[in-house]
Amino acid sequence: MAGTPSTYLLGTGTALPGEPVGNDRLSHRLGIPSAWVETFIGTRTRHFAVDLDTGRARWTLEDLCTDAADRALADAGAEPSEIGFIVLATATPDALMPTNAALLADRLGIEGAAAYQLQSGCGGAVQAFAVARAMLSAGESALGLVVGGDVCSKHLDLAQDFRELPPGALVNYVLFGDGAGAAVVSGTPRPGTRAVLTHLEHRLAGPGLPPGQRVEWFGAADLRAGGLPRPAVTEDYKAVEQRVPVLARELRDTLLTASGWRPESVDYLLPPQLSGRMTERITSELGQGFEWEAVSCVAETGNNGNALVFLQLDRLLPRLTPAQRALTLAVESSKWIRAGFTVEAPREAPDA
Amino acid sequence: MAGTPSTYLLGTGTALPGEPVGNDRLSHRLGIPSAWVETFIGTRTRHFAVDLDTGRARWTLEDLCTDAADRALADAGAEPSEIGFIVLATATPDALMPTNAALLADRLGIEGAAAYQLQSGCGGAVQAFAVARAMLSAGESALGLVVGGDVCSKHLDLAQDFRELPPGALVNYVLFGDGAGAAVVSGTPRPGTRAVLTHLEHRLAGPGLPPGQRVEWFGAADLRAGGLPRPAVTEDYKAVEQRVPVLARELRDTLLTASGWRPESVDYLLPPQLSGRMTERITSELGQGFEWEAVSCVAETGNNGNALVFLQLDRLLPRLTPAQRALTLAVESSKWIRAGFTVEAPREAPDA
Repeated sequence: MAGTPSTYLLGTGTALPGEPVGNDRLSHRLGIPSAWVETFIGTRTRHFAVDLDTGRARWTLEDLCTDAADRALADAGAEPSEIGFIVLATATPDALMPTNAALLADRLGIEGAAAYQLQSGCGGAVQAFAVARAMLSAGESALGLVVGGDVCSKHLDLAQDFRELPPGALVNYVLFGDGAGAAVVSGTPRPGTRAVLTHLEHRLAGPGLPPGQRVEWFGAADLRAGGLPRPAVTEDYKAVEQRVPVLARELRDTLLTASGWRPESVDYLLPPQLSGRMTERITSELGQGFEWEAVSCVAETGNNGNALVFLQLDRLLPRLTPAQRALTLAVESSKWIRAGFTVEAPREAPDA
Repeated sequence: MAGTPSTYLLGTGTALPGEPVGNDRLSHRLGIPSAWVETFIGTRTRHFAVDLDTGRARWTLEDLCTDAADRALADAGAEPSEIGFIVLATATPDALMPTNAALLADRLGIEGAAAYQLQSGCGGAVQAFAVARAMLSAGESALGLVVGGDVCSKHLDLAQDFRELPPGALVNYVLFGDGAGAAVVSGTPRPGTRAVLTHLEHRLAGPGLPPGQRVEWFGAADLRAGGLPRPAVTEDYKAVEQRVPVLARELRDTLLTASGWRPESVDYLLPPQLSGRMTERITSELGQGFEWEAVSCVAETGNNGNALVFLQLDRLLPRLTPAQRALTLAVESSKWIRAGFTVEAPREAPDA
């Protein structure tokens, strides 16, 4: 991964919530000796998105990422409309779905972008730059917005008795802070380039070692006893029913145009997999007038999210004869993502 | 994002947990009419990683992804050692940290890979292929492993009275299923290529619209009242203290070699940001013998994870004079990731 190509940093911006919280204030709040923090951790101040006194969240990750991105755009002298893709890295997304990357696009008024969200920790910014660099070198001509941030509000249980906690648990309360940062990147030099990211490296480096940190998340099934502060999963099924067929049609047409494939030359359709019923409906709509063979799995596998397209591919590949073509369409309703690709069998028999 | 370049699918594999669960069994378990599922959802069977009777998780996402990846590797006739990077897409990671992508590498015996995990829903497989394609076209010569999967165990609260649930909530219990899939990809054709992914598209397509789905996660602070089934965040601080300086040194040397930069030509060091104390120690170790100016923030900002490198860049850029060089080093302890890059100011003043 080292070497080519260069990534041009056009501007950066950051956002830290509220006033810095010093060790005196933090120690007092937690009822632990300030000297312990000073000596053992050595961090003097940090910022929290949550109000230390009330435990109320004052900023979301989204808020911080938006502020940081706004500043990076201003620093780069770039408009949101110039951004072709977003790569946002975080260990602590506001929710599992929709992603903060998708929501950020909305907050910034960026339309039709590709939005990637990396689940990552302290290596996340580098991983995000690596994805951005690859996108730029793959011919993405627009600018990219790289963002990283974390908000530990959901992990800060401020109601407990901290004097009972062992140092290993206390460390989480004094080590971390909240914040976000962003950079605008380009694959080609532009006036105002601030710096050039030349070589980049990230590698798994602990084969076989136990994790150094584990951060859990909880869902409804974990927490039955205590009751949930809000529904764990909500779905606007009506909106899904209405929008997905439209998005699927648009996507079909976009892919046909991009590939230059005549509809008659397509052999298979891998339609969106929502439910057996809805997929059936969409499939017959999408393929109307064409002799496309549909490859679906949802009626048997249920909607298993990120696995679906793979399950469909697994069913498609054994059927493909040389030069046959397939159209794969997926729609993500969490924040309305149109996603698909065209697949073609090699002209000659695979093992010839 | 349409058009170039092609991505060659060398093999695929999938994994579905246990036996298919039919509508009769599911309806009986939930105490709802089977006809409602048939009519409204139309999905006939699905697979669950959790045992419907006991509520016990029988498979993790990791288990399923490992099985799917094993099968994809076998299907491709490829060895784990040929894999240069993993892109894993999921909405429901087993934990927030370490990532399933990193853990999967371990399970498969892949060493020193780049491991990306996308937070994503039904568009995730396409996004993962997009990242893989970009990596391959950016010159990654090794094979890539693309994985997608979801396990909804944490969201399936099987202890509740389902007859009280409104259809909008019930839908989550009959719509989803668990599973994983994987594909081995290459940037160049190889014997045995199964199919070629030619055009790819994914775009945000709902500007300003409210999300169609929201999936929450909960942390310690949300759930105080009910007690936690396990600690939300755990950290092996001793291991971090021992390993991070070593990894940082290795990373420094790797980057210097890759860039061909002589240490004397480097002006700034952006060291790993763990805690004020540890960063201080590592910085003095790393820069020993060199006149590198350190750019840190952790002592003031706390360890704000994915934001850190951006905060450091934000401090670095205003100081950079033409042709100055900086070394950025980050280490992620969740599963020991070495991540960093070299940055250089343009030779001429930025706006000249």
